[in-house]
Formats: sequence, C-alpha cells, structure tokens
Amino acid sequence: MDNQIVKPSILPGFMELLPSDQILFNKMLDTIRSNYEKYGFIPIDTPVIEKSEILLAKGGGETEKQIYRFNKGDSDLSLRFDLTVPLARYVSQHFSDLNFPFRRYQIGKVFRGERNQKGRFREFYQCDIDIIGNGKLSIINDAEIPTIIYSTFKGLGFDSFTIHINNRKILNGFYDALNIENKIDVLRTVDKLDKIGFEIVKEELVKLEIAGEAIDRILYFIKIDGSNEEILKQLLELNIQNAMFLEGLDELTKVVHYIDCFEVPSKNYKIDLKVARGLDYYTGTIYETTLDDYPKIGSVCSGGRYDNLAQYYTNQKLPGVGISIGLTRLFYQLREANIISSIGSSLTQILIVPLDTDIDYSIKLASALRAKNIITEVYFEVTKTVKKLNYSDKLGIPYVIFVGTEEIATNVFTLKDMKSGEQLKLSLNEILVKVGE
Amino acid sequence: MDNQIVKPSILPGFMELLPSDQILFNKMLDTIRSNYEKYGFIPIDTPVIEKSEILLAKGGGETEKQIYRFNKGDSDLSLRFDLTVPLARYVSQHFSDLNFPFRRYQIGKVFRGERNQKGRFREFYQCDIDIIGNGKLSIINDAEIPTIIYSTFKGLGFDSFTIHINNRKILNGFYDALNIENKIDVLRTVDKLDKIGFEIVKEELVKLEIAGEAIDRILYFIKIDGSNEEILKQLLELNIQNAMFLEGLDELTKVVHYIDCFEVPSKNYKIDLKVARGLDYYTGTIYETTLDDYPKIGSVCSGGRYDNLAQYYTNQKLPGVGISIGLTRLFYQLREANIISSIGSSLTQILIVPLDTDIDYSIKLASALRAKNIITEVYFEVTKTVKKLNYSDKLGIPYVIFVGTEEIATNVFTLKDMKSGEQLKLSLNEILVKVGE
Repeated sequence: MDNQIVKPSILPGFMELLPSDQILFNKMLDTIRSNYEKYGFIPIDTPVIEKSEILLAKGGGETEKQIYRFNKGDSDLSLRFDLTVPLARYVSQHFSDLNFPFRRYQIGKVFRGERNQKGRFREFYQCDIDIIGNGKLSIINDAEIPTIIYSTFKGLGFDSFTIHINNRKILNGFYDALNIENKIDVLRTVDKLDKIGFEIVKEELVKLEIAGEAIDRILYFIKIDGSNEEILKQLLELNIQNAMFLEGLDELTKVVHYIDCFEVPSKNYKIDLKVARGLDYYTGTIYETTLDDYPKIGSVCSGGRYDNLAQYYTNQKLPGVGISIGLTRLFYQLREANIISSIGSSLTQILIVPLDTDIDYSIKLASALRAKNIITEVYFEVTKTVKKLNYSDKLGIPYVIFVGTEEIATNVFTLKDMKSGEQLKLSLNEILVKVGE
Repeated sequence: MDNQIVKPSILPGFMELLPSDQILFNKMLDTIRSNYEKYGFIPIDTPVIEKSEILLAKGGGETEKQIYRFNKGDSDLSLRFDLTVPLARYVSQHFSDLNFPFRRYQIGKVFRGERNQKGRFREFYQCDIDIIGNGKLSIINDAEIPTIIYSTFKGLGFDSFTIHINNRKILNGFYDALNIENKIDVLRTVDKLDKIGFEIVKEELVKLEIAGEAIDRILYFIKIDGSNEEILKQLLELNIQNAMFLEGLDELTKVVHYIDCFEVPSKNYKIDLKVARGLDYYTGTIYETTLDDYPKIGSVCSGGRYDNLAQYYTNQKLPGVGISIGLTRLFYQLREANIISSIGSSLTQILIVPLDTDIDYSIKLASALRAKNIITEVYFEVTKTVKKLNYSDKLGIPYVIFVGTEEIATNVFTLKDMKSGEQLKLSLNEILVKVGE
C-alpha cells in the first residue's frame, strides 16, 4: 500500500517548538500565570473566532489589513488579533454579571497576517492583565501594575530590567502649553530619540516647523533625568501652567509614591519622559519594560491607563489600566540571544528500567513513586538496556532505577544519577528522599 | 461624543464562561494536565492555523464540510479540527528530533463548523495523550492508558465511572470467522444495542440478510458478560479459530492483567464487547469511559490503539495508542446536570479593606501575605465599607482583613470569615496560620 505522501510542514510565520523548548515555554507561561493570579486577577477565555463586526468595530488600517477574516455559511468571521478588543466586548456583554473593579487576566493566542519577517509571528501568545473600573478607577492601580511586572520578571529569572514609566497627560499638557499643533508628529520624532540621537531629533523638529524656542524647551524636557524624585522636581520647576500637565504630574507623583510602597526596588523602575507608547488609546500612565543587558530586544512588557475600554460596545464609561506580554516573540528573542536555555526534553524525574521481562514489579514501583508526586515512567519496550539508558539520556531524565530479579527479591534498587553517573543502592523511602531533594 | 454602538455578542456554538465557571473549567484543565504530566507525557503545542493540504491530506466527508478553511494572500489555510492530525504531521516533520516511544500531551482548542445544536460546540478544548512507537509499541502501553483515565477522573472528583475496554481484532476476527461480508453494517447495528435493545438489533440483522445461525452467534457474543476473567474465559470457549480473533484475545488478556497490576480498582474498568469506537482508524484496544450515575452523557473519554499514525506524511510506521477528553462538551454537560458547581468568582483568598485613606500600610500587608503565597487584593477605591464587603461577598473571597488607625498602631488585625461571619483579632502570623489551613 503506497500512499501519496504530503511533505509535513507548517506555514511560515508560525512558531512550533520541539519538546525541550516547549517545556521551557510552558514554564514561562506558568510563571506569568501564577504571578497574575497572586495579585487577584481572574481568568477569562474568549473565543478565537468572533464576529467581524465586533472585532472591526473600531476599524483602522493595519488591523483590517492583517486580520484573518473569512466567511462560513452566512457568517462573516474573524480571528482575534489581540485580547483587548475581546475584553472590551466581554465586559460590555457581561457587564451586569461582573464585579468592579474587574481584575482579569487572559493568556491566549492571537492572529495577525503580518508581512513575513524574522522574529515576527502571525500566531502568538499574549499574556494580558487589566483592571477595569466602573466609571472610575483609583490611581493606585497604576502603581500596582509595575509591581506585577516586577514580580513576574523576577519570577522569570530576570534581575536587571527597568520598568519605564511616563504619563500621557504630562506629554499632552507639555506640548499643548507650547502651542504645538502637530503634536503627534513631534511625539513620533521624540520617540525615535534613542535610535537617532539628539542632533537628528533637532533637525527633524526644525523640518516640522517648530519654533526655535519651543525646540529648545522640547530638548530640555526630554533631557530631564536623574532619580525619580529629581525628575519630578524638575518637571514641577518647568512651571507649566497647564491643567492637564499638572494633573499628569500629580498622577505620576502618586504612582511613584505607591510603587515605592509596593517595595519595587528603585533600580527596577524609572520615570522616562521619552516613553510615548503609541499615539492614541492610552490617556494616563504608560509603561515599557526593557532588559538592561539586552536593550536591542526593546520593550518586553508594555501597557498603560485608558479612559474608556469599550466605547464601541457600550455607553458605560469603563476606565482601565493594563499590560501585555507578547510571550511568543519574547521567547524567540531570548532563545536567539541565548539568554534562556533548555532544561531537558521531558518532565519525567525517574525512568524505571526493567532488567528482565517481569514488568509487574516495575509498574507497582512506578505507582508508588507517582503517589508521592514524582513524575515516573516505565520503559516498557523490549530492547537492550543500553538503548533504554540512551532514551533517558536524550530526554534529560535525571534518574534511572534498575529493577531486576535481585531488586525484586530484596526491595533495594539501584538508582543511577544520569548527570553524575553515581549509582546508589537504595530502598524506596531512600529514593523518595533523594529525588525529592 | 456619541459612538455608534455594536451590540456585544459572540457567535452561536461558541462557549464563553463567566468568571465563576471559568475558574472551575481551568481547575479541571489543570487537573487533567497534571495527571498527564505525572505519567511522563511531554507537552507540545501546534499552530491553530495549518496548511489545508496538510489537514485535509486524508480527506473525507464530514471533515471537509466542517473545517474552517480560507485564503489569505496565496495561502490556502485551515483551522485544526482535532489534535491527532497535527500530531501526525508533527511527529513526521520532527521525526529525527524526537525520542521514541514519544509520549506527548496536547491541550488546546479545535474548530468544527458543525450544525448549530444545543451542547455542540464549534470551538472546543481537546485534551489528548498519545504514546507513539517507532515501528512497534508494547501492549503494556494499552494498559497504562486506562490507568491514566482512572487517575484523571479520580482527580476530577469522580468515583463511579467505568472504563469500557474492547479490542477491534476480536470484533474483526469474530465477524470474519462468521464470514460476514458487510461487517461495518453489522458493527453499526450492534453498536446501537444500548439504545434500541436486543429485539430490534435482531430485526435489523435479519434485514441485513445475515444467516440465522450467524445472528444467534452474534447475539450470544454481545450478551457475553460477567467479570473480566469470566468474559475472557467465555471468549476462549467460543473456540473461534481465527488468527486475528486469537491475537485480539491475547492482547485483551494482557491488557486486563496489566491494568490490574497498575492497581486500577476492578469496579472502574470492564471488558465491554459492545464498544466498537467508530469504524476505521483504530486497530486494537479501544476505550470508552462512562459516568455510572449519568449514562446519558455518553463517553467522556475515548480512544484506542492504531497501527499507523502518520501514513499521509511519512513512510515510517508509527503505531500508537491514545485518548482524548473533549473538555468543553464535558464541562457543559456536567454543568447542565448540576454535577459540578461554582467555587467562587475569584481566586483571591484575602481582601484587604482599608478603613481610612491611608493605603500605604494595607499595601505593605498585602506584600507580606503574597510573599507567603496567599492570593491577596487590596480594595483601593474610595467608597463605603459596606460596598467593599459586598465586592468580597459577590466574588466569594473567603477572608477580609480590615486595616484602620488602630490596626496600624497595634499590628493586630480584624480578620472576617465571610462564610461564617466570625471576626477574629489576629496578628499577621496568626492570619497566615488561619488562612493557610
């Protein structure tokens, strides 16, 4: 019987991992989840497929181009391209069944038919938290979010990272006070500062026909640096009499106070007036997170405060604050930069290797180990012992127990530590102590 | 600013849960996952979107009708409709990087554009395990699978359930020995026994032009019952000289021996000669699992042994054995039948309620509790205490701690048990003991 074989492959722009990487990926996912849960966030799960009229209610260029949209029967369907639009729809739809502030997390795949490019994915995991208020939401939430970023990235094994914090009201107020009309162009230019440097930013501002005095003030503004206290002091000393600027400054001052209260080390967060975080949607506090030793990776966790989550689905005013970790891209970058490395191709802690054909005893031993929550496998296939050890070795299983006639008679087993090669004669209880270490 | 509002809704046939149900659902998912992992299964995650030529390599009526298929640019794309075809593609594609037997689990959503029907879902979770051999695979694996079913459903809180076990070789051999040509029609008829009863099965067999003597033997065969040992003995006594029948009988005998060895209680598994499990694909052992008190729900976990996982993608012979739990449908049925009920709308264990405007102390207390892995929230919003308690009550948060001037001065807090209404004055350490109970 000769079948026609279809060459097995996946589509470009999709990530698929071998077991060793998958185990690492899942470990990161679990760490993110448990940190989100520790702060009282509640899981939700929304459909991957939604009505196109829902997902495209806002409309907009890139989204419409990238979205996976198709018909099935009479229905116009789309795959979700983020978790924020589904959240807005969820909160609007289930408004009367939810309790506010609504603290939700969602971890799931989203889909964007982007141009194919190294490190860009068309299907990727987002890990989001948002806190949604009914009508209003305390500024303290804006300070709790960086705390969760801190806790999560510490949990992921990072130590040197910086949460950059800014406030859109400060930016808007500042540029309003300068009477700058093409604020968006100026913000975009300033946003490129780290890439292009001061001189080119200055040149571009001249091209935008910004008055010389205003350019000086802009450059002075974005050069403001120092400790958080120093930055806040300098912002105050700018003496800008603009209500929005002052409101933003007040918010930022409070946020810094409370982040400190949450005991986030001062080396891990910093006011950064250059952070602008896109150009609409966010209305207050904004966040970006960078790995100090790997600045090229860019922001690994971003978000901010918004006034109105769900204006396309409800007239309820729903302010919120949230962040997102794009785990697929982050994982790819960390792997490419060799920042993370495999912890083995299996979760199994002990492989039981029967030395003769009597498997019954090995099965019972496995049950006893599993009852103590030790992940255990028995090698059932009939083959040479060296092949069984090879299986254990390749999977990175740390321990092997040999079970032969003698072991069955004496209840003393040979436990082999696959890393050190050390072999010990141990009872079941001694094995539990050793492996449980 | 008046927006045009799109009424928030999801598509029919898609499941979306409120937080209380979502928490319950995730708990079940976690239980399934940890049981799969306990037996050494390795996680994989394949793309939701694959090439249509891959997913439809086998072809076939229902699949082609139900699949979500669409074009994006030049690509002919489809959403996965199960996790078995992606597994076959994965194992073929990554063959040289995998170690065999390859024990993998995958938990994820699959998509089928079925006719809209109560209790049927177009997007649903499957939780699969499979053990794939390279060329061959020991029969002991067929006995380990029911052990994992047992462990998983015990973990899910069930006690009275039955894993029904049969072997396709016994069925095929038996009908071959009777020289029945339209075996598939006969199997389909016999499969309906529980629904239509013996008399109608007999009538339908007559209609299929089965000889009277053969009908008698079929009816005798499907009436075989008793303990597993008795059934095996009766099968042997049928004295059928057909190689396939005898091979199946030998396999089933071994499977029963090893399941016993795995210490699955005899009340939880049973040879059931009526189980036929579809009509192709499976080639040996087959499983179905029913909840004893809720027979109407049908099988909640099914699977079996197959000779060749990936014939459409590789010439490698890859026999395997596996099962699948369709969790979305199972969850829906268990909820409908009130077999499971909500455990609260939040994961939070303690809500800290500040009694005045000084939030700093409450934040520090929350950090201390979280450091001890207690899921903690602070109620930040400025509102009446009764509203804060109402929030806790509605979410089902078990404990509230009040923090006011006196508490801050004395480091003794009022802990309220929201269920009993009991209020205790406790130190932080006493709270940790109480809540950690």
